[in-house]
Amino acid sequence: MSLTQSSAFEIANTASLAARQLAVLSNNERNEALTALYQGLSMNKDAILKANAKDIASASRAAENGDLNPSILKRLDLSRPGKYDDMLQGILSVRDLHDPIGNVTLRTLLDDGLTLERVSCPIGVLLIIFEARPEVIANIAALSIKSGNAAILKGGKESSESFVAISTVISEAISSTRVPKSSIQLVQTRDAISSLLDQDSLIDLVIPRGSNDLVRFVKDNTKIPVLGHADGLCSAYIHHDADPETCVRVIVDSKTDYPAACNSLETLLVHERVLATILPAVAKALVAKGVTLRCDELSKSALREALGAGQMDSIVDAVDSDYNTEFLDLILAVKTIPASASGQDVDAAIAHINTHSSKHTDIILTKTRSTADYFMNSIDSAGVFWNASTRFADGMRYGFGTEVGISTNKIHSRGPVGLDGLTIYKYLVYGDGHRAGDYFDGEGGRRWKHKGLPL
Amino acid sequence: MSLTQSSAFEIANTASLAARQLAVLSNNERNEALTALYQGLSMNKDAILKANAKDIASASRAAENGDLNPSILKRLDLSRPGKYDDMLQGILSVRDLHDPIGNVTLRTLLDDGLTLERVSCPIGVLLIIFEARPEVIANIAALSIKSGNAAILKGGKESSESFVAISTVISEAISSTRVPKSSIQLVQTRDAISSLLDQDSLIDLVIPRGSNDLVRFVKDNTKIPVLGHADGLCSAYIHHDADPETCVRVIVDSKTDYPAACNSLETLLVHERVLATILPAVAKALVAKGVTLRCDELSKSALREALGAGQMDSIVDAVDSDYNTEFLDLILAVKTIPASASGQDVDAAIAHINTHSSKHTDIILTKTRSTADYFMNSIDSAGVFWNASTRFADGMRYGFGTEVGISTNKIHSRGPVGLDGLTIYKYLVYGDGHRAGDYFDGEGGRRWKHKGLPL
Repeated sequence: MSLTQSSAFEIANTASLAARQLAVLSNNERNEALTALYQGLSMNKDAILKANAKDIASASRAAENGDLNPSILKRLDLSRPGKYDDMLQGILSVRDLHDPIGNVTLRTLLDDGLTLERVSCPIGVLLIIFEARPEVIANIAALSIKSGNAAILKGGKESSESFVAISTVISEAISSTRVPKSSIQLVQTRDAISSLLDQDSLIDLVIPRGSNDLVRFVKDNTKIPVLGHADGLCSAYIHHDADPETCVRVIVDSKTDYPAACNSLETLLVHERVLATILPAVAKALVAKGVTLRCDELSKSALREALGAGQMDSIVDAVDSDYNTEFLDLILAVKTIPASASGQDVDAAIAHINTHSSKHTDIILTKTRSTADYFMNSIDSAGVFWNASTRFADGMRYGFGTEVGISTNKIHSRGPVGLDGLTIYKYLVYGDGHRAGDYFDGEGGRRWKHKGLPL
Repeated sequence: MSLTQSSAFEIANTASLAARQLAVLSNNERNEALTALYQGLSMNKDAILKANAKDIASASRAAENGDLNPSILKRLDLSRPGKYDDMLQGILSVRDLHDPIGNVTLRTLLDDGLTLERVSCPIGVLLIIFEARPEVIANIAALSIKSGNAAILKGGKESSESFVAISTVISEAISSTRVPKSSIQLVQTRDAISSLLDQDSLIDLVIPRGSNDLVRFVKDNTKIPVLGHADGLCSAYIHHDADPETCVRVIVDSKTDYPAACNSLETLLVHERVLATILPAVAKALVAKGVTLRCDELSKSALREALGAGQMDSIVDAVDSDYNTEFLDLILAVKTIPASASGQDVDAAIAHINTHSSKHTDIILTKTRSTADYFMNSIDSAGVFWNASTRFADGMRYGFGTEVGISTNKIHSRGPVGLDGLTIYKYLVYGDGHRAGDYFDGEGGRRWKHKGLPL
């Protein structure tokens, strides 16, 4: 089926109408739909896993033929121990979060009988584009309904059987509740993306969940605001007064805990004065974990003094592009920060990071709080950490309960995005026939009270 | 001078570097620059007014030749009584606002010795594009510095002499302070816009201040997020239980207080049951103020019964496009909402507004709180008011002290945008060698504390 402009409009318009109905439902009404979603997916586990097995079979064949990256197989597989139950539990976790809608965040008495309120509300219509993971469908459906947003979900071709099975269950489950059925619409054809990305008058936010290529394609092809990060190029800076043991612990965890994650370390900056003292211990620990270090000249020669010949096999020469590369693998670029007059060395590290990092998460290792504060103020990234692993940049670890994704945007929502990132606010004014023309500074003009009221 | 891509890059890159320096300055250091700005503009009033007089002279000639809309003359003129002093006072008002930077809005104990903070920070680099009003230069420069953002200001050709005079004073004033001189850069050539709009890796937010055409051009020609509204198509709905006197007061103010403003009323929806009771009084009051009503058939025939022949000269037939038109003039489109079973009439008004309005500000006139609440929840606009004029949609009137503009965006900042709209946040983690790999639910794994700490 080819999705024409007119049917993309129809889908977006239907979502827009559903969004207006969703916006007036209570938290209880939205929660009931999440309970129905949970029950439907629980009862239909066998049918969904059967459909999922078909996707796995097709993907296995494609992987054998070399047409598919085998890592996708693992992501596709809903039958892995605990995975389906985690998906179900996730729906209940979202249901039990605090209602993000209808919260009054400002209340001002403008004048007698004239009150201003700022109230949180849904954004409207979300377009979620994702690739392999079928559990994301249930996860995102739950988040959208909880936040009162209508969602158009566009899945990838590898998960098409799972997608149809899960989406059928979701539609049936919702139809027994007050949440409009078209609050969650599922679109599957590959050529749908461009037509949907054109609906900027009806769709309010696009959230791509998948590869960097997908995120970049989306950002380059729509006027709709996009929430997401294209890259996670995270850096660590070891200052000359860092604690050696802390450096080893934090750097090894940042690089090796899960190298394919966006919050893994990709570049290590080392102060010249600790090339011979701290770097060797860090390098030995990394090499022992299978990491290859791509070093500039100074750091390489320091390691040549300290490491054995066998270990030096893992130390190679860096090229300029290594400092702009998200390896997503057991590879780390290493660069020396020259020793200089007080402060300027930190500035050199800051300048490198602000120029090369992807504004995701960057860390400093130092014993001095004031140096850390200066670094944390100066680095223009969503997360800036002191003596802690880059891998803490995560919605669950931050205590948000769940995460829509991690944003490197500079507006709206930055870093791990929780339910808050799916809301905005509106201003409500309650009056009694008040006219703006009555307020002016001349004689007889009414004066503003502008008095803050309790929330 | 033609602005090439490379010089646009140079300007944006310089701004980006200045933004990093600005980000570490204290509120006092930023305020000192605003004091210097105030003093510089006070001392150089004569020179600036002299330059402004040249712009006025050129613009007057252009207006006489029919090459310029005469309304621009008034906006250009800095010598009008009180205008220059208002501009100066505005700088001090911004200076004395609460510091928007460094506010901790979330603090969580993740584990012993591991703390998360969410802290407000500047967005980075703003590109402000404006047309005639020269006082906007000082206003926006003050807002940018106060919020720690670097700004690139692009002025219009009508205010070029004023622009050069004011910008020279601003540059000199800032250079005596710790705020980097290139925090405020002024660009004047007309062909600069496109080159600057291409710098999406260095410029974080564009704020167009000017005509709808300017805002649309900017939105259509950049990947940088745009803060602003292209249209202000505001509607009012008179429900069947509205108070007649309230309707007259509020509608007349909404339409006639300042018809050229974006928050003026453009469409009036009237419940069928009050066509003969409330509408005539409203129409008479509007016609007395010189307003022409473009009516649908039902409303026109109701008015034919009630109005005199002379008054009927101001009642004309509406065409479909009138309900999508921002008149910015003494013209109002009127449409009847059919009487129907309970609730459905309000739904018809809501559907009309959500389809036709520009999501700026819409109001309801009713005596019933529950009807108002339903309307206010259902309307998808930045402002929704009950029994109060659309003209209250304004940063000063809301008590924000100042206003960057009014946003009809659905993300980041909506409605009148104050200093808050020029900030975002970052997440800071303070650790002591903490590793993410130590946290898991198995035996011996560390557990999250996720305990909220006082702000």
